[in-house]
Amino acid sequence: VRVEVINTGTELLLGNVTNTHLAFLGQALFPLGLRVERQICVPDGPAIGTALAEAFGRAEIVLVTGGLGPTSDDLTRDLVAELLHRPLADDPLVLESIKNYFTRLGRPINASIARQAQVPEGATVLDNANGTAPGLYLPPTLLPDGRQSPHVFLLPGPPRELRPMFTGQVVPIIQRLLPAGETPADCCIYRCVGIGESSVEALVGPALAKIDGLEIGYCARLGEVDVRCIGSDGMLERAKAVILPALASHLLARDARSIEEMLVHRLTETKRTLACAESCTGGLLANRITNVPGASRVFLAGLTTYSSAAKCALLGVDAALIERHGAVSREVAAAMAAGARRVTGADFALATTGEAGPASGSGQPVGTVFIALADPAGGEPIVENFAYKTDREAFKQRTCQAAFDLLRRNLG
Amino acid sequence: VRVEVINTGTELLLGNVTNTHLAFLGQALFPLGLRVERQICVPDGPAIGTALAEAFGRAEIVLVTGGLGPTSDDLTRDLVAELLHRPLADDPLVLESIKNYFTRLGRPINASIARQAQVPEGATVLDNANGTAPGLYLPPTLLPDGRQSPHVFLLPGPPRELRPMFTGQVVPIIQRLLPAGETPADCCIYRCVGIGESSVEALVGPALAKIDGLEIGYCARLGEVDVRCIGSDGMLERAKAVILPALASHLLARDARSIEEMLVHRLTETKRTLACAESCTGGLLANRITNVPGASRVFLAGLTTYSSAAKCALLGVDAALIERHGAVSREVAAAMAAGARRVTGADFALATTGEAGPASGSGQPVGTVFIALADPAGGEPIVENFAYKTDREAFKQRTCQAAFDLLRRNLG
Repeated sequence: VRVEVINTGTELLLGNVTNTHLAFLGQALFPLGLRVERQICVPDGPAIGTALAEAFGRAEIVLVTGGLGPTSDDLTRDLVAELLHRPLADDPLVLESIKNYFTRLGRPINASIARQAQVPEGATVLDNANGTAPGLYLPPTLLPDGRQSPHVFLLPGPPRELRPMFTGQVVPIIQRLLPAGETPADCCIYRCVGIGESSVEALVGPALAKIDGLEIGYCARLGEVDVRCIGSDGMLERAKAVILPALASHLLARDARSIEEMLVHRLTETKRTLACAESCTGGLLANRITNVPGASRVFLAGLTTYSSAAKCALLGVDAALIERHGAVSREVAAAMAAGARRVTGADFALATTGEAGPASGSGQPVGTVFIALADPAGGEPIVENFAYKTDREAFKQRTCQAAFDLLRRNLG
Repeated sequence: VRVEVINTGTELLLGNVTNTHLAFLGQALFPLGLRVERQICVPDGPAIGTALAEAFGRAEIVLVTGGLGPTSDDLTRDLVAELLHRPLADDPLVLESIKNYFTRLGRPINASIARQAQVPEGATVLDNANGTAPGLYLPPTLLPDGRQSPHVFLLPGPPRELRPMFTGQVVPIIQRLLPAGETPADCCIYRCVGIGESSVEALVGPALAKIDGLEIGYCARLGEVDVRCIGSDGMLERAKAVILPALASHLLARDARSIEEMLVHRLTETKRTLACAESCTGGLLANRITNVPGASRVFLAGLTTYSSAAKCALLGVDAALIERHGAVSREVAAAMAAGARRVTGADFALATTGEAGPASGSGQPVGTVFIALADPAGGEPIVENFAYKTDREAFKQRTCQAAFDLLRRNLG
């Protein structure tokens, strides 16, 4: 069963909005044994019709996102109805439910919202619990050229509307379309830190290549390399026997999707707690840690001490130390980590201080960063020093990744 | 000049990685008067060749991302060389520079990295300052079928490598291809908060439609609606005269790309300072505020007090208050905001406490949140209460958006 995705929206192509639909849909389809074979993004307008017509010739399932809203540039519903020769009609139940949604929010009801209550003949309405525009499922129909149309799903653009609709209503429909009894291949991702992509492949590639039928992929990101294995349970067992010993010290925990997940799991298992004192990362460490469900069991507190006064008042850093070495220094990083451990009572404390740019406020070159870890032994914190010459947000992410890796290597 | 983007990478279609290239490229091309007319994502493998061949028939500029790395699934360079009938040859200068990069990082040099030093005949090498695989520019060439190939740019997959290469090396090449003397249209985005998409269009749509040649778009997101106007300076002036009075109190500052930018600008202008006390948002407020360059002038400190003990120790919240009302309560939110203002000396302090889920630890239903603002008057903090039934990360984002909007409405 070939699946294609068409994302509509001029804002995606102008770059005003990042397209997160593909990642969501790819993840949601894989457990069904399906993959997105091709994804296309086109602007609002007639290009949607062209992309649809092309996909009709190739795919059995077409997922279309966006363009179902109330405004004049929302054209998907009309274009699909035309292409499938299914006339649109007002659906009073849908209109009622949209009006109720507006009333619940206390928002004025507007003539243009009626557009969203139009349903092509023969379509199934997919309720939208988190917005106004319903989704639509159009089962296959005979086209004038004698071909059969694919299963077409029209989904709303806002992710918080699309996601629950897809999981709750589209997945069950797709499951009924699939042949019964087949076990889909499984996917196993091994995430490594502190090693490069070509070294990873040199260590595991030749042995993995001998596993017949196993699909292997590599993907490098900021401070991480993924080895992706797809295949039957038997293939994945053999792959695991290759990867675990070869990549040993570089591997995150098997079930961790991210280094912060791995840290929360390991801290939980060993009943230890963490605090963060952040200057240049400005809350990113705390934010990433608290994205992990269950973080509250191990994460006591994060102190984003952006100003020198805050470093002194909240972490007990000696003002003379900042005066002598500067806020961006090995000494201040160590004092922040020790201070965070002291004021929160956590077992471990991570601290960051650096110059994120664009301009330098500390006298240190933009990109300079010091990362410190205070551990349960209570000795002098470990401090590491890096230079990340990049934009502000990437600087924060790289510093965060390095801080998490420092903790990972010292969790014992 | 028609531009198309081809993103390669099985990890993008599986959803292991979100494709951020389109947003970056769209933003970088617009000031040149160019738009991405179509973006396609295909898995590593022969589908890359199919997508390229299709784009060759339509586009004048084709930007290809990914598949230039050292591992066996990196096929883009080979497929493009084959399609353009340009044989690959080892480039000793590129090999030297890759070896230097590895030596600088202290990483072992590996036989497979030599793949990345292969250059198709007639191609221009685009240096990669942030990684090993160079980019490649392949100027038009006569294909065997008599057609001219488009300008093809092969760019590395990691964003931190692609972005500086595109800005520094690809943009100058593209600029030379464009006809001189044309002034590209400009784009103006008005971001509104606290109003729905259809109400926005009802207020400004009819008057904007009377501006001949102006392109208008609407885009709704979590707590925000964008009105996008594209056109000449004259058209944009007329659009502004429509939009400013009609959307008045809902508009963020004109030059703000985000509500946090607007807050940092307004606080800077009025010389006032901010602190945050976060429970359920776990550092997200601080993280978003500190993403704004210059945040250090207004943001004193953020305290992520995840545990009740941290709320008492760091913010001076009375333990009896938590005991009586629960950590997720109007009273505790107010005490956190007042405490953050007191311990940091900031003019304003925002506080959040809520139940992000997946399980409830506080006895309150998952999704419950209280947001508080303490202001320079020093009176009782304003508290607002919401219920966001969504996933953990969206819950944090919505709460953050609501907190920033509470501050926005009370900045005076």
